[in-house]
Amino acid sequence: MPLSSLPAKLKLGFLGAGQLARMSSLQAFRFGIQVAVFSDRSENEPVQFMTPFSTSGSFESVDDMVEFAKGCDVITLENEFISSDILKEVQEKSGTPIYPSPDSFALIENKLIEKQTFEAAGIPVTPYKLVKNESELEDFGKTHGWPFMLKSSKGGYDGYGNVTVKNIEDAKQAFSKLGGNNGEDILAEAFVDFTKELAVQVARNETGTVVYPCCETVQEDHICVAVLSPAPVEKIIQEMAQELAFKATEAIDGKGIFAYEFFLTKEGSLILNESAPRPHNSGHYTIEGTVTSQFENHVRAVLGLPLGSTRLNKPAVAMINLLGTHKRPAEADQITEALETEHGHLHVYGKVDSKVGRKMAHYTLLGDDLEETYKKATHVTREIEI
Amino acid sequence: MPLSSLPAKLKLGFLGAGQLARMSSLQAFRFGIQVAVFSDRSENEPVQFMTPFSTSGSFESVDDMVEFAKGCDVITLENEFISSDILKEVQEKSGTPIYPSPDSFALIENKLIEKQTFEAAGIPVTPYKLVKNESELEDFGKTHGWPFMLKSSKGGYDGYGNVTVKNIEDAKQAFSKLGGNNGEDILAEAFVDFTKELAVQVARNETGTVVYPCCETVQEDHICVAVLSPAPVEKIIQEMAQELAFKATEAIDGKGIFAYEFFLTKEGSLILNESAPRPHNSGHYTIEGTVTSQFENHVRAVLGLPLGSTRLNKPAVAMINLLGTHKRPAEADQITEALETEHGHLHVYGKVDSKVGRKMAHYTLLGDDLEETYKKATHVTREIEI
Repeated sequence: MPLSSLPAKLKLGFLGAGQLARMSSLQAFRFGIQVAVFSDRSENEPVQFMTPFSTSGSFESVDDMVEFAKGCDVITLENEFISSDILKEVQEKSGTPIYPSPDSFALIENKLIEKQTFEAAGIPVTPYKLVKNESELEDFGKTHGWPFMLKSSKGGYDGYGNVTVKNIEDAKQAFSKLGGNNGEDILAEAFVDFTKELAVQVARNETGTVVYPCCETVQEDHICVAVLSPAPVEKIIQEMAQELAFKATEAIDGKGIFAYEFFLTKEGSLILNESAPRPHNSGHYTIEGTVTSQFENHVRAVLGLPLGSTRLNKPAVAMINLLGTHKRPAEADQITEALETEHGHLHVYGKVDSKVGRKMAHYTLLGDDLEETYKKATHVTREIEI
Repeated sequence: MPLSSLPAKLKLGFLGAGQLARMSSLQAFRFGIQVAVFSDRSENEPVQFMTPFSTSGSFESVDDMVEFAKGCDVITLENEFISSDILKEVQEKSGTPIYPSPDSFALIENKLIEKQTFEAAGIPVTPYKLVKNESELEDFGKTHGWPFMLKSSKGGYDGYGNVTVKNIEDAKQAFSKLGGNNGEDILAEAFVDFTKELAVQVARNETGTVVYPCCETVQEDHICVAVLSPAPVEKIIQEMAQELAFKATEAIDGKGIFAYEFFLTKEGSLILNESAPRPHNSGHYTIEGTVTSQFENHVRAVLGLPLGSTRLNKPAVAMINLLGTHKRPAEADQITEALETEHGHLHVYGKVDSKVGRKMAHYTLLGDDLEETYKKATHVTREIEI
């Protein structure tokens, strides 16, 4: 049922306590909602510094999570680490609804089922095959060419669980490393010769669906370093991506916030690469960049509130991921230039320790021209050490 | 010293745990800063639901607050309930700096000293007199006319501590009620025949000063019901108000965020009515209405970070205070229309109990035309029960 009121002490529970739950929590607080958090680490998780209602336990223990869920009005996810079976059991035993629903999540947690689900909905996906042994690895290479990707069907995070293989020796080693010899389902995925990676976020619940602008995710070594919105591609491509993202969310009957990453091929077609049933790094720019952020629509969606406008606040938005530059106690240093820049917004995630390449913070700059805005955002953050 | 870095676990302590500290905390969290809160109530204060670092004690106990302050890197205020003498002692004994400084606060906590300070800086203030007895009350009425205001020099909050007196009988009664017979300093203040009430926020620290647009505060029965920005007055009046607010902040050597309320007289002159050394209800519209909110500049200012732009994000902003409509457990009801309105932003303060007239929430609408925006904001919030 759509919610038309916000009662005192309404409590939103997050399974996971990292920066995504943190940014959603900030929005929950704006609505006067209380936040409870369940983490598999006992301390120093970003959200644990933001609420008195913090629990730790195992993401594999139904009992731990049932206890937690009973104290909450609605549960939501910030990662894909908990299996849909466990989520379903937690929901049934606690009586507390979980959104996105375990049924939706079941359609995307396994990369094989995910691809089948989206293909069935008419959404182009990367050419793939479930590979069982050396000869199938070899066949895939012959058909689609080397290199290709091997992925654990159980998914991963930020490229973990994915391996690029250049030849059959590589492929055998990766197959084994990913657990292929121990019964894990391993997918081979053809390399797509793409010109850009695009992303679209979608919020959906019983009150409707809203689709964010199509943005570009700029990657270096498979890590997203920047996001540009709107994506510097033709309008028709943007709209195609938005349409596919809309269809994908329908296909899994999603309630919550979802993100979809696409390859734009040289021929100008779009292929769905990945999906995520949660706020996504590609949508951090929406905090200041759009009328309603992905985090606000996350909270609205899972509570059944009407969804907010996804319109851009300025013609151009650039978001720079500030990745750890040192292994040390976290410290955002040399931030003066970024803070002094008009329309620039710094977000630091409150992590206690920095590691090289770890997502520690981000910086969003709004402007009128995309290229200039990106250039300036890069420039004013270039000396930040974090 | 200006701060150029944000170290992990930097802790900002708030003396006071209401909605103002809450909204500043939300910004502190965005910078990865931890929030600790000291309240004179042991539970159910808005910020207490937002941090594991919550302490309660007395605002009159130096010891209670020293203990709290020792655990923080910087202390700031959300109210005017603690005397500057006590703040100074807390600062000295804990070694933790307090901003705005006790010295700045000493210049405005007492309404008599406040008026003298601002007069000395060339800022027009409401005609006033320290009244000591019945005959001085009578004299004031003769000189400035009835009715006039009696105010406890120790100040108040939302009109508490202020009494309008219509004749000498009223005046004697109020004088006694406010403690005039027990040695309290009581100020008589002439009624100013004003056409509008205006407000300006200023953030200032060692890196510079930024001044917000001049806004209008719309009052009903001495309670602010709406804020319109920019104020619908001539540009020259707006600039005069901004200039006076700038000068007032210089006069108290303020470090932090400050708000000033002015009367605009029929003759087009400005008179400073009140000042506040903290985020202020008149500046809530800045959360979405300006590039950098008063809460972000509050956090930046007290930490010594460079201050952010105060430019409006859209030509017109209207903020509606959502005051309690019932005495009941808090619940924001009938909010659908407000949430569905593009560029509308609902903020609920997380209070547990509602009382008629209590500040429970606010709603900000951005638009292109001030009158239309105000009309629409009023319209879409008209049925909210809270």
